[in-house]
Amino acid sequence: MNFSSRLLESAVDEFARLPGVGRKTALRLVLHLLNRPEAEVERFSLSMTSLRSGIRFCKVCHNISDQLVCGICTATRRDRSLVCIVEDIRDVMAIENTNQYQGVYHVLGGVISPMDGIGPSDLNIATLVERVQAGEIKEVILALSATMEGDTTIFYIYKKLKDLPVRISAIARGIAFGGELEYVDEITLGRSIATRVPYESTLMK
Amino acid sequence: MNFSSRLLESAVDEFARLPGVGRKTALRLVLHLLNRPEAEVERFSLSMTSLRSGIRFCKVCHNISDQLVCGICTATRRDRSLVCIVEDIRDVMAIENTNQYQGVYHVLGGVISPMDGIGPSDLNIATLVERVQAGEIKEVILALSATMEGDTTIFYIYKKLKDLPVRISAIARGIAFGGELEYVDEITLGRSIATRVPYESTLMK
Repeated sequence: MNFSSRLLESAVDEFARLPGVGRKTALRLVLHLLNRPEAEVERFSLSMTSLRSGIRFCKVCHNISDQLVCGICTATRRDRSLVCIVEDIRDVMAIENTNQYQGVYHVLGGVISPMDGIGPSDLNIATLVERVQAGEIKEVILALSATMEGDTTIFYIYKKLKDLPVRISAIARGIAFGGELEYVDEITLGRSIATRVPYESTLMK
Repeated sequence: MNFSSRLLESAVDEFARLPGVGRKTALRLVLHLLNRPEAEVERFSLSMTSLRSGIRFCKVCHNISDQLVCGICTATRRDRSLVCIVEDIRDVMAIENTNQYQGVYHVLGGVISPMDGIGPSDLNIATLVERVQAGEIKEVILALSATMEGDTTIFYIYKKLKDLPVRISAIARGIAFGGELEYVDEITLGRSIATRVPYESTLMK
């Protein structure tokens, strides 16, 4: 693109560096900001820098937090003996949005991926083992993606925890509610028949 | 969405205010920035605020510029007797990218749109008339969108300029190069037959 302004060009460059934002979209966003009041643009910028410099991660579960320990870990109504192990904070939000879960979390901060140079020591696994060793936790739920990296991570954590006095479960896999059988992939469909459950157990309690 | 951090929530709110950015995309972008070095986030923020506070518009053509008069208006190799009238600076960039145009521009800053409360006085039309009256301009090219608002604006400008000693032309309309006839809309197809041109004139010079 042909810019008549260095300032414009550098702003577009910065936006285009964001994931999934091309140069045309970046230009559209920058021109939008240019038409906004100066105070609004300042507020936009400030929200980014103060987030980056002010954000903390909960020292118990590693969820994003403004305090030393996050709101979920400190909430009195939550069951601290049940810990859901997830990849990142987006998964925490997704599960929180279901309003179905009353336990707490442990955010790994990624999955084991040798291709990307991410090993077990780069993830929050040691602190998970410490939490379980402390003895308060009765059950951990492995809620990682069903990918090769997710399965590798699940297996690694399973080996670390299997000799400790804790129940290890995994989220149920199968055909989504509302999903049509003919569009389901073969592996999911095959496994969902093999791991069929008594009909009575599917009735909502 | 369920945020455990106020800072995160406000950053997501700010991003979600951008056009075409929903809350899920905003969250993805913010989490991306959160994983970048602090200096990079500062640079991102600074590029926005310095653009907003430092940007100028060329006092001749109203194109975006870092100086009082933009690089296109001051370039010696450009033909200042030929002025292309466009809606906004994105059109300037689009035309510049073709590398086919050697004249200068006049950016209106919008089109007449009574529905949005935009009248002729909100656009850079008075300065256009002044430029033409100054006498250096031999031809203006109307390069606005073929919408109702664009046509209204074209007609308004035509009325303002028609008694001045200047040639008024409009960009050619017709079927796009590479376009297939069966997918062209009826109006364009009908007009392109009515306004057909001698075959020899279509041969590249």
